[in-house]
Amino acid sequence: MGINLTNFLSSKSKDTKMMDFQDLDHLDGLSISVVSADLYKDKRDDLSMFYFREGANHASIYTQSKIISENIKWNINQKPQKIFSLIVNTRNANAFTGKQGYESLKKLANLTSKQLNQKQETDEENPRKISPKNIMFGCTGTIGETYPYEKISSNISNLVNKIRYTQNKFIWMKAALAIMTTDTKPKLSMEECYIGNEKVKIYGISKGSGMIYPNMATTLVYIFTDASLSNYILGKLLKKNITNTFNAISCDGDTSTNDMATIFATNVIKNPHVKSIKDNKIKNFDKALNKVLLNLAKRVVLDGEGASKFITVNIGKCKNEIEAKKIAFSVANSPLVKTAIAGGDPNWGRIIMAVGKAGPKINLKKLSIKFGDLTIVKEGKLFQSYDENLTSNYMKGENIQICIDIYTGKKNFTAYTMDLTKKYIEINADYRS
Amino acid sequence: MGINLTNFLSSKSKDTKMMDFQDLDHLDGLSISVVSADLYKDKRDDLSMFYFREGANHASIYTQSKIISENIKWNINQKPQKIFSLIVNTRNANAFTGKQGYESLKKLANLTSKQLNQKQETDEENPRKISPKNIMFGCTGTIGETYPYEKISSNISNLVNKIRYTQNKFIWMKAALAIMTTDTKPKLSMEECYIGNEKVKIYGISKGSGMIYPNMATTLVYIFTDASLSNYILGKLLKKNITNTFNAISCDGDTSTNDMATIFATNVIKNPHVKSIKDNKIKNFDKALNKVLLNLAKRVVLDGEGASKFITVNIGKCKNEIEAKKIAFSVANSPLVKTAIAGGDPNWGRIIMAVGKAGPKINLKKLSIKFGDLTIVKEGKLFQSYDENLTSNYMKGENIQICIDIYTGKKNFTAYTMDLTKKYIEINADYRS
Repeated sequence: MGINLTNFLSSKSKDTKMMDFQDLDHLDGLSISVVSADLYKDKRDDLSMFYFREGANHASIYTQSKIISENIKWNINQKPQKIFSLIVNTRNANAFTGKQGYESLKKLANLTSKQLNQKQETDEENPRKISPKNIMFGCTGTIGETYPYEKISSNISNLVNKIRYTQNKFIWMKAALAIMTTDTKPKLSMEECYIGNEKVKIYGISKGSGMIYPNMATTLVYIFTDASLSNYILGKLLKKNITNTFNAISCDGDTSTNDMATIFATNVIKNPHVKSIKDNKIKNFDKALNKVLLNLAKRVVLDGEGASKFITVNIGKCKNEIEAKKIAFSVANSPLVKTAIAGGDPNWGRIIMAVGKAGPKINLKKLSIKFGDLTIVKEGKLFQSYDENLTSNYMKGENIQICIDIYTGKKNFTAYTMDLTKKYIEINADYRS
Repeated sequence: MGINLTNFLSSKSKDTKMMDFQDLDHLDGLSISVVSADLYKDKRDDLSMFYFREGANHASIYTQSKIISENIKWNINQKPQKIFSLIVNTRNANAFTGKQGYESLKKLANLTSKQLNQKQETDEENPRKISPKNIMFGCTGTIGETYPYEKISSNISNLVNKIRYTQNKFIWMKAALAIMTTDTKPKLSMEECYIGNEKVKIYGISKGSGMIYPNMATTLVYIFTDASLSNYILGKLLKKNITNTFNAISCDGDTSTNDMATIFATNVIKNPHVKSIKDNKIKNFDKALNKVLLNLAKRVVLDGEGASKFITVNIGKCKNEIEAKKIAFSVANSPLVKTAIAGGDPNWGRIIMAVGKAGPKINLKKLSIKFGDLTIVKEGKLFQSYDENLTSNYMKGENIQICIDIYTGKKNFTAYTMDLTKKYIEINADYRS
């Protein structure tokens, strides 16, 4: 099941780096270790540690849900200048676990900081003092089940023992696999760029699969760079670039208690200081970060549960971005649009319906709709040369592009989603049987 | 396919009138005629005329979509004191048909008013003068196809010839069938009540089937009463009672260009004058109208495409009704919740997810969730006596009740929906093949 990633990505981009998969290698200042804590009872890798020997600057964006998991609470409550370790477990979301969940993290943070301090004493000339608040957690999996503290805590020393100061593509792949739940493919992405004369790396891994075994599709996104950037700049950059990447994808419109996107900067590369994200020096990094995030976001959609087609919905010539986004998601989240596309049906009437119900005003006299290069609606009317056969043929493809111009202004927004198939229902209705 | 209506309705209500089906009979001041204009090319009935010989007071609520069909435009543009005829066709939504669609209705209104004027001259002592603006249209079906003016106009005289001054249950059933598109069952409902000492009838028919062959699930709701009520009072009553009936149902969150709910009063029964909907005299009517609308709304959900279960989502103890509604629809529209229920899975984690993502603040320390009589979450924690087997058993039923108390206030809202099954995808992905 799933879309052929290579076909898709190669058709979207000439950039061979977009091909399946990019090889991530060493990133200075970061160590990765991965173990099985047997959380799935099948020995798969399920517990990862990202260790920053000198600490990393960082910024995060968390789920907008009013019900958040205990690890998100932990992360928000600590306000450390630097993160020394990110620990990610799957199988258990640590959501709706209350005191047991939160206290478990507190104990794990204590334990981890202690063991990392011992490691610092052994390895470093100038050992850093790591405190529990320097430990960050990512959790994903079932909610409402007791957090498996014992299994995880008994594996902290394994994680610490596995720390190596050189990473290669295998450990990245191992980590990307270890954070997966129902994902069928690991998601990795990388770019390199310059800040001033210094070349820096941006590496990222992600998980999320439309939705949902065992309970909901948490999206986790972790970005790592060896650049020197402040928490303030990282925060601004992440917020800016999440908008048209991870906040532009929708698999079924549902949101998890555990969603989390974090960027870490190890500050190993001594690039020129960046004061503002309007600074010219940061432009290339800004673009490269967007590419990494968009690449990962698209991989999440491509791996959407039951997906057989990748759908790009571009809303153009709109009054403002907020309205364009509303219309884009009204189309991208419409079960009717998504089932029509699953059936390869050029059912433009459903697009009209979704545009109409979105809320924002439409300039109906000028409205235009294209599927790929094929004009469907022009100046508010079915295009006179509309060809049902040609359009049906287009709909048979794996990569469906819908462009809708609203003619109320100049702004645009692009949303990404996948089709809604019987397989989606199968996965989500039957997962516990 | 579909839920056993009798089982469901009888379990919801002791009222035998709720049983499948209610027999509607004569309603003074209204005539119904139904023909096949062969719009489906299979001779099924597809064109109906509701004729009010003395004119009817009326009020309508139309779709909130920014793209509306030509018949809705026509109806909005005319501002007649009385409606003499409502003409409803299926198969063609007259949406995105532009000038051809609108002009067709203008010609039909001309033609119909002329023929009805002739009939008035023949039948009535004091013939009324019917003008084109006294004609109202309901359309549902495919959008973007040329409106079948010829087929419809050539059948107006058939409709007029078929006018009889006594209705029985068969003509009501025929009309309820004739307005259907993908519906598998006609939808009829009735109540009787008193205004002062006068007994009046409220009859209603409806169509809508979750969604959508051939293009989208237009909901049409037509309510008829023999009471004497002004346009103003009818408008207030309809608006008030649509909120927790037709605006409380969701099959897939999509909205059509053609949705329309209209109430007609023939003014034959000379009940006491009603000046305000706060008037005590109208209380019984108000309640009865709500019952008729809710009954019809539930029938629409029960007939939802691919539905195997009826779902009631009650949000209680909420700050205000707007927030309660937001949360109710966040649950009722969640594909994850709906697929879990299709699979008979008591996946309360997905309910939590849907409550959390809705937007309004939740009192997490007190939050409670019940499935039917079974407590799942109490005071923000999984209930200590939660029994997975008992709950699984409950989920096997056809009628699933989810009650969620938010503890931020005293208001509540109930939404109605159905589960999301493979059958839904089948119907909507493959409908044109």
